Amino acid sequence: MERGCFITFEGGEGAGKTTLIERLSADWTHAGRQVTLTREPGGVDIAEQIRNVILNVENTRMDGRTEALLYAAARRQHLVEKVLPALERGEIVLCDRFIDSSLAYQGHARGLGIDQVYSINRFAIDDMMPDVTVYLDLPPEVGLARISRDGQREQNRLDVEQLSFHRRVREGYLKLAEQFSNRIVTIDASGDSDNVYTRIKSQLEIRLRLGR
Amino acid sequence: MERGCFITFEGGEGAGKTTLIERLSADWTHAGRQVTLTREPGGVDIAEQIRNVILNVENTRMDGRTEALLYAAARRQHLVEKVLPALERGEIVLCDRFIDSSLAYQGHARGLGIDQVYSINRFAIDDMMPDVTVYLDLPPEVGLARISRDGQREQNRLDVEQLSFHRRVREGYLKLAEQFSNRIVTIDASGDSDNVYTRIKSQLEIRLRLGR
Repeated sequence: MERGCFITFEGGEGAGKTTLIERLSADWTHAGRQVTLTREPGGVDIAEQIRNVILNVENTRMDGRTEALLYAAARRQHLVEKVLPALERGEIVLCDRFIDSSLAYQGHARGLGIDQVYSINRFAIDDMMPDVTVYLDLPPEVGLARISRDGQREQNRLDVEQLSFHRRVREGYLKLAEQFSNRIVTIDASGDSDNVYTRIKSQLEIRLRLGR
Repeated sequence: MERGCFITFEGGEGAGKTTLIERLSADWTHAGRQVTLTREPGGVDIAEQIRNVILNVENTRMDGRTEALLYAAARRQHLVEKVLPALERGEIVLCDRFIDSSLAYQGHARGLGIDQVYSINRFAIDDMMPDVTVYLDLPPEVGLARISRDGQREQNRLDVEQLSFHRRVREGYLKLAEQFSNRIVTIDASGDSDNVYTRIKSQLEIRLRLGR
């Protein structure tokens, strides 16, 4: 049995992760590969319970570090119950967001510190870093405008404070792409979507020797 | 206003923490000090929600690292919402179990590693280590027999495997007492309880200059 591979996808809002992952999954499945498409908390019951605590609207007093620890706990459970078994079965695991989201959003943009958030996530994942991570890079103005156009979010929520937060998220991702340049493939997601897709697919197939 | 002080109490089952803390609280309150007596999750709503996930009997698939991260998250929230405000008001905070419980039970006895569990807890407490920690040392056979005599637990649960687990917990505490000898005061809890109490009270008052 071939060894499975673990691919994660990162990026800001509207960068196009979901569409990309679904296309990859469809194409590779069609080509006869076993693919698991997942995202945290990924239907893992314990991780969902943790997610409910994080997202409970009444929990306005939640401290930033509490939140980071809860995300790490949910990540651990999703990894153990869903990602690792699929890898052991030799599958390609495509995961929408993973450790780098915590590092970019909470570590950098929320100011907890990338190194600090990395330390608790290293405990959570226990060296199970992704084989490769695709970072879809896009100026936040463009991503947020895409979402707005799609009617998923109202224009008036894209105020200046939000934009500055999303700029910090992007800044965080770019730092990570530099720090983990062996693992993270940065793709300019601003171009034509078919073009972006083709570039990512071929890069992944070369890197993971998925082609024939 | 006098600076508050943060005292934590550690030990295995039946070592007598609860009684000790209640006596100290009563005596110091009687002497005119403001005392907050607490234990995790300490009635802090978010920490209780996290605790419910940990203790949910249906969560049999919970990974050890998930559990350790959840305890650290609950600890963070209890610290921020309850301990720190009391310390800022200048109070003496007596806390039944804190970071060392995670280190001894999960780090050492459950085998996750003291250093590893310490790293996530350092993130959780952000340098708010206790001013002093009282460790009530007792052979687990003695502690478990006390509990059994009190009718709090049935004799048949004290089987060999449990005993070996409680021995590892004690081993963990003794390692910690050595590693953190400036912070942790080890007290032999096997003697007469009045005697033990008097020794602890005077040691704490000297250390924290609580006496007159």
